[in-house]
Amino acid sequence: MPAPQAPANSTPLIPILQQIHTEAQALFGQGQVADYIPALAQVAPRQFGMAVALIDGSTFATGQAHTPFSLQSITKLFAFVLALKLEGEGLWKRVGREPSGAAFNSMVQLESEKGIPRNPFINAGALVITDILTSRYAHLDIAMLGALRRLTDAPDLSWNGHIAKSERETAHRNMAMAYFMKSYGNVLNPPELVLDNYCRQCAIEMNCAQLAQATMFLAHNGQDIDTDARPGEQFLSPSDARRVNALLLTCGAYDAAGDFAYRIGLPVKTGVGGGIVAIVPGRGTVAVWAPELDAKGNSVLGAFALERLTQLTGWHHG
Amino acid sequence: MPAPQAPANSTPLIPILQQIHTEAQALFGQGQVADYIPALAQVAPRQFGMAVALIDGSTFATGQAHTPFSLQSITKLFAFVLALKLEGEGLWKRVGREPSGAAFNSMVQLESEKGIPRNPFINAGALVITDILTSRYAHLDIAMLGALRRLTDAPDLSWNGHIAKSERETAHRNMAMAYFMKSYGNVLNPPELVLDNYCRQCAIEMNCAQLAQATMFLAHNGQDIDTDARPGEQFLSPSDARRVNALLLTCGAYDAAGDFAYRIGLPVKTGVGGGIVAIVPGRGTVAVWAPELDAKGNSVLGAFALERLTQLTGWHHG
Amino acid sequence: MPAPQAPANSTPLIPILQQIHTEAQALFGQGQVADYIPALAQVAPRQFGMAVALIDGSTFATGQAHTPFSLQSITKLFAFVLALKLEGEGLWKRVGREPSGAAFNSMVQLESEKGIPRNPFINAGALVITDILTSRYAHLDIAMLGALRRLTDAPDLSWNGHIAKSERETAHRNMAMAYFMKSYGNVLNPPELVLDNYCRQCAIEMNCAQLAQATMFLAHNGQDIDTDARPGEQFLSPSDARRVNALLLTCGAYDAAGDFAYRIGLPVKTGVGGGIVAIVPGRGTVAVWAPELDAKGNSVLGAFALERLTQLTGWHHG
Amino acid sequence: MPAPQAPANSTPLIPILQQIHTEAQALFGQGQVADYIPALAQVAPRQFGMAVALIDGSTFATGQAHTPFSLQSITKLFAFVLALKLEGEGLWKRVGREPSGAAFNSMVQLESEKGIPRNPFINAGALVITDILTSRYAHLDIAMLGALRRLTDAPDLSWNGHIAKSERETAHRNMAMAYFMKSYGNVLNPPELVLDNYCRQCAIEMNCAQLAQATMFLAHNGQDIDTDARPGEQFLSPSDARRVNALLLTCGAYDAAGDFAYRIGLPVKTGVGGGIVAIVPGRGTVAVWAPELDAKGNSVLGAFALERLTQLTGWHHG
Repeated sequence: MPAPQAPANSTPLIPILQQIHTEAQALFGQGQVADYIPALAQVAPRQFGMAVALIDGSTFATGQAHTPFSLQSITKLFAFVLALKLEGEGLWKRVGREPSGAAFNSMVQLESEKGIPRNPFINAGALVITDILTSRYAHLDIAMLGALRRLTDAPDLSWNGHIAKSERETAHRNMAMAYFMKSYGNVLNPPELVLDNYCRQCAIEMNCAQLAQATMFLAHNGQDIDTDARPGEQFLSPSDARRVNALLLTCGAYDAAGDFAYRIGLPVKTGVGGGIVAIVPGRGTVAVWAPELDAKGNSVLGAFALERLTQLTGWHHG
Repeated sequence: MPAPQAPANSTPLIPILQQIHTEAQALFGQGQVADYIPALAQVAPRQFGMAVALIDGSTFATGQAHTPFSLQSITKLFAFVLALKLEGEGLWKRVGREPSGAAFNSMVQLESEKGIPRNPFINAGALVITDILTSRYAHLDIAMLGALRRLTDAPDLSWNGHIAKSERETAHRNMAMAYFMKSYGNVLNPPELVLDNYCRQCAIEMNCAQLAQATMFLAHNGQDIDTDARPGEQFLSPSDARRVNALLLTCGAYDAAGDFAYRIGLPVKTGVGGGIVAIVPGRGTVAVWAPELDAKGNSVLGAFALERLTQLTGWHHG
Repeated sequence: MPAPQAPANSTPLIPILQQIHTEAQALFGQGQVADYIPALAQVAPRQFGMAVALIDGSTFATGQAHTPFSLQSITKLFAFVLALKLEGEGLWKRVGREPSGAAFNSMVQLESEKGIPRNPFINAGALVITDILTSRYAHLDIAMLGALRRLTDAPDLSWNGHIAKSERETAHRNMAMAYFMKSYGNVLNPPELVLDNYCRQCAIEMNCAQLAQATMFLAHNGQDIDTDARPGEQFLSPSDARRVNALLLTCGAYDAAGDFAYRIGLPVKTGVGGGIVAIVPGRGTVAVWAPELDAKGNSVLGAFALERLTQLTGWHHG
Repeated sequence: MPAPQAPANSTPLIPILQQIHTEAQALFGQGQVADYIPALAQVAPRQFGMAVALIDGSTFATGQAHTPFSLQSITKLFAFVLALKLEGEGLWKRVGREPSGAAFNSMVQLESEKGIPRNPFINAGALVITDILTSRYAHLDIAMLGALRRLTDAPDLSWNGHIAKSERETAHRNMAMAYFMKSYGNVLNPPELVLDNYCRQCAIEMNCAQLAQATMFLAHNGQDIDTDARPGEQFLSPSDARRVNALLLTCGAYDAAGDFAYRIGLPVKTGVGGGIVAIVPGRGTVAVWAPELDAKGNSVLGAFALERLTQLTGWHHG
């Protein structure tokens, strides 16, 4: 486990974030807002927010860091952590932990690998995680929301019902995956129910500041830090926190994980809502949001902002 | 870049290595010596060596840490670093930097991705790197050996001619890959020549102590450390060293990269000769060798030894 | 179009069928009854029936030629013919006519070919056909049964409700395919409804004599022949009948189509209920049933019986 | 075996061929001359020739039916027949007889099916056939030419040395396939030698009249018919001739076999030189040549001409 490093707030974060904010705006127009869910396609493209939370409790923000956005695949991180806490290493019987080397919604590997998804962060893997949690919770949608409200100290956190509905109505490919894995015995609940839970989960909204806080335990040896609302607690064991970060580093950015590791070198989780959260173990977390996506579904300005942040601060994973 | 962390030699490395050595022996017999090259199949299976080199110049070893073994794919790391120094970012036009999600000698991706290999550490990628270097050096085999002799301060380092010949004679699948990529214009030299160079490179032999020293620049911000033989030099830029480590973390263990990251959490490169080298940025390097391999071609005792080392020292990547 | 050839009943069919019946019994035990649907797995394995219908109206039978069996994929032939009559060449926008070269329930091609199945006789293709027919008929299950009652003059023909239900409850993989194609816009109706119709269709039961009669129009230039119950009619155009036969020859036996063409040389359609129907253009039809299947899902004794019949009669396609 | 049908020369072939010739010219410009071998790319595109040979010895021709063209893949038919005569059913241990469902030069299936090509008419399969023949003949190139001179009674038949050389120099992908199959033990000779033979074979030139004559045995129960030069002989057994035709029907037109069967319904073999030969069992053979190819590598005018011929004569396979 990393010894806490030299106090991070000695780095002049405020001018750095301002500089990144300025530079990032030159990239507006290079990507496209996700259009595979009608409701997501209506988000205004030229938005950018960024928040940094340090383990000493200080926080720094720029741009629209308090505008809520749709977490989408970023919620896969929270669902996975919940399942890991409940199932422990037994989890790995039902999902792998290797990079997929394929698009997030590919079915090809699923066929050659008999219904066991490559990792918990591609869609198929996230559906298995949701299936596992669906077996554990009578009302998974509510349980998930409760867990996230606690991590963020935001009592009004919720899913966007409009987006959840839109997503559920067009979830044909995810339904196909769930049924396909069911044919291999790797989805136990009715796919319709799994998808109901999955779509509500994906539609949960947070802002950058909340997202940075919610993932702080991953930067802090599994321990949630004290907030105004409550004292910190050991949310995950230090070794599990380290492992989750390793998984985010190798699998957190769909099939651009290698490129993210190369350019940014931090554990990240991205979402098609345009959000990215990055973990700087021993230091803190960074959340960034900008809805325009590249061809692989990752935020163009978000990836740029994280790359610049590591260059300007020298922060990286190791 | 990581600030040098608390002096690593405060950790009692000698008893730790001895303990790992003892524990590892219980795993003899669980793997199998590589048999795809006749000459490699003759290596005695029950061998184990381990060496740790720290950035303060101290070294620690246990078992057969001074027995030379066939580096095999570990040489892909050195070839890649050489090519990166020569070509810079232009390199990425001819090879990707994503985990392959497939076996090290798969041709399927190569077809769907038009002859551009996923990364420099799968066979196809290493062949492209060799092709690039073949265009640069009149006698690549000698140039490569010269570079490694310098990094190790071992003037008698060489390839095993018997293994190189055996490997060349059975290199049908690698020949297939080289011709296949040539059909896409991504191999410029005659495949026969590329394979000659490639097979000599793979057959280079080192021992654990030499391997740990040879990779030290990756743990030390790209800077080679002073040795008895010569003063250190900046072998790679700090940012390139960090990037090479990121690539090793996501792609260094064939299609077990995710599992290695999860269990060990360090940048590694493995070889079917049974060697593994791991980088602990800011601290040092670890080389381990045990010829028995698991189903994915990685050393069984080697992976175990690295996992135990990270548990017993708390070292990891971040 | 083939001129009617020398009267086929000059061939001594009765002793030939008896000989085949005797020889075939030596193969009992070489295959296995389909077990992927619980209800099908209960069929007694050692059964064999065979019926030949000639275009002069004569019929010949041996063994259990009047025992009803589950048509399963053989119904794909009738569904396709119905859709071809309704849609004409427009049909080919939604389904291909190439051999798949893959297992009947593979999803891999479906992904690389954007939801357009290779041909109407693999499961994915048959589901598209069912979707097309579902859009045409308010009660497709009843319409299909009506069409088959007419072709067979068997007013009590029906589906086996037990098998239809069993099949529907375990249709996860077919549901996956239907949802997958829906994600590409190639299934228009709700997958649940398409599967209801599909499973009832597959569960329709006939005996060999009925099956031979029901397909007679394909041997007779598209024209149904006179029966005791009613005069013949032009069911398909001669050129469409020829084309259906071509499709059966290249795609009628799952991924064993090439082997069937090589050994038997006739247009066929097979089903996992153990039935096979073969067309001898210009002569007549042959239906054979024996529940034990080979590894590719085709009846072991059925394929043998057809191969022997072509050897003993000299009948083949050409 | 088909009884010889009503004398085919009662059909007014001369005006039919003239009509087809006229109609076909409207399609000039719809396809493209093969460009993957530089020497082939130089063929003038707007050419068309067609010849029909009947089993009564009569022949009919139109257009450039006596202009030699590069047979290319059509030679795979002759090589396969030679190997079948030599090896009999043992041949099927090294090559399959199923449609590939993939492009003629795909390596994907070869990997999943362990170096056994799907059928003798895709490139990989033809290379295995060449390897088999290379083991049998000291000078396969000469032996092949000798066999074709005999079948055509054309003593000056030869390969085009310019095209053979051009093809050999750019045969990277075929070399890749040969080495790949060698890695599975399914190529026994040095790939360089196999490719030498293969490229000379592909570069053999014939005209339509010669090609129609050379394949006559397939229309005539395996029996070569009498020519001015020599009496006919039983070249293949009737059952083997029937089987070769079945294979041509399912696999003779690359991955357009299903479409050819549907539209034309005859056993065919196509080549990227623009030639197509079709067998009308019991009647005769048809050779057509027009260098412009469709996207799947088949002659545009050639396919059209065959489709029209079957429509205007009623000839088809059955």
